[in-house]
Amino acid sequence: MNKPQKSIGIFDSGIGGLTVANAILNILPKESIVYFGDTAHLPYGDKSPEIIKKFCRAITSFLLQQEVKMIVIACNSASAAAFELVRKLAEEQQVTVINVIDPVVDYIVSNKFNHVGIIGTRATIGSKIFPTKIKIANPAIEVSALATPLLAPMIESGFVKGDISRTVIETYLADETLNDIDALVLACTHYPLIKREIEEYYKNNHKNVNIIATNEIVAQAVLSTLESQNLINKVGNAQYHFFVSDYTDSFKKTTQLFYDQEVSLKQIDIFKEE
Amino acid sequence: MNKPQKSIGIFDSGIGGLTVANAILNILPKESIVYFGDTAHLPYGDKSPEIIKKFCRAITSFLLQQEVKMIVIACNSASAAAFELVRKLAEEQQVTVINVIDPVVDYIVSNKFNHVGIIGTRATIGSKIFPTKIKIANPAIEVSALATPLLAPMIESGFVKGDISRTVIETYLADETLNDIDALVLACTHYPLIKREIEEYYKNNHKNVNIIATNEIVAQAVLSTLESQNLINKVGNAQYHFFVSDYTDSFKKTTQLFYDQEVSLKQIDIFKEE
Repeated sequence: MNKPQKSIGIFDSGIGGLTVANAILNILPKESIVYFGDTAHLPYGDKSPEIIKKFCRAITSFLLQQEVKMIVIACNSASAAAFELVRKLAEEQQVTVINVIDPVVDYIVSNKFNHVGIIGTRATIGSKIFPTKIKIANPAIEVSALATPLLAPMIESGFVKGDISRTVIETYLADETLNDIDALVLACTHYPLIKREIEEYYKNNHKNVNIIATNEIVAQAVLSTLESQNLINKVGNAQYHFFVSDYTDSFKKTTQLFYDQEVSLKQIDIFKEE
Repeated sequence: MNKPQKSIGIFDSGIGGLTVANAILNILPKESIVYFGDTAHLPYGDKSPEIIKKFCRAITSFLLQQEVKMIVIACNSASAAAFELVRKLAEEQQVTVINVIDPVVDYIVSNKFNHVGIIGTRATIGSKIFPTKIKIANPAIEVSALATPLLAPMIESGFVKGDISRTVIETYLADETLNDIDALVLACTHYPLIKREIEEYYKNNHKNVNIIATNEIVAQAVLSTLESQNLINKVGNAQYHFFVSDYTDSFKKTTQLFYDQEVSLKQIDIFKEE
């Protein structure tokens, strides 16, 4: 049976999903977290839906074994390729699954934007999942999507401010695909780290564009879902467990970019085959 | 028994190793090639030596089953982590293994450079394998290494010319670590694609620096090794087989950046476990 004291399970192909964990803990500071980063297989972005499903099946089993009360798929590629699979597996144990796409679509539709830009990895944009879902929800909303594949590695390389990030951000945002948008979805867990620089770009160009950081929207969805299920932890005693499928010092270092506090990463082999 | 008609086996974590295949075919146009790109697990750069060894063991078995006459490890991370393992496995079938590090070290030592710069991924630079091997061969050579993690994703994102690549290349090469070098090793299979831009940078800054593209050096090592073993294919009838562990259209597209001709990628599952 589900209880408020149980943890929230969060997973991603790597450590980018920590921005989602961060946003959740900002508004739900008493919750416990079990995080799994599939660093042995990252990035999912360029991988096929079939192989992503295999990985997600193993990760979901692992999180369910940890007796989480909810699973958050903090990864766009996994949300696009494996949400139905994860939901089906979790349903059997009455565990709700939240992905990083549907709450954002709901937010866009309810905020009555006219023309929404989407930026993300090649895989997220190539999947057309945002335009498709937004059009289903409200065909009147215009959607323009642009793949911005260099942003995530740029952030991971530590270029968040300065010449390089400014040049890369400007080059992408000046693309005519994004002309005349009134909102921009940062459809990648890495992008909250350059939200300020993106806002700066639009300010300097005298454009009024709402920047939608998906991690904050997803955190709100987690809050309202837990609320409706009477599963909010009001006691506290929060515990944080961070697992990765392959540990390296480099991950450890990059973790600090994405997460406010010191993280103790534990390596665990959940893919029996390897 | 080894025969000239057999193929050269080449592998990489992805498709970057195609620059090595290209360089080999440029000087040995009659050779057949079996290429394996471990796209299900790429990139190796941030992964642990233990897991890289597991992957390389499976790939080596696969290439030996294909009856190759030689194995080229066209990947810096795999060369650093798994060369001894691959050599041991291949030795049992009298197959020589060439990596992308030792031929470059030999070239540097025999060309009497005074101060050599090395650029590569975080993993390659972090392994210190180039400085260590160069110092063992000739302690008088000064070696300065700089991790340039944004270059490979930049190239994969198609930014080879223009503002972004110029800004990124300039930012990295202007790092004081690389002051006063007389040679620069491009220690990543992707970097041959920006060799011209790097040469341009030094020309514009009136600096005389030898740019060492490892794919060309490795191709020379393949040539001289095959020569010494009487294994050069003089007949022709070359066949090319390109295998990947995970096929996506995005790989297919990126392939065109790295390889002169149309490539037919075949997906094959050599990791029984997955």
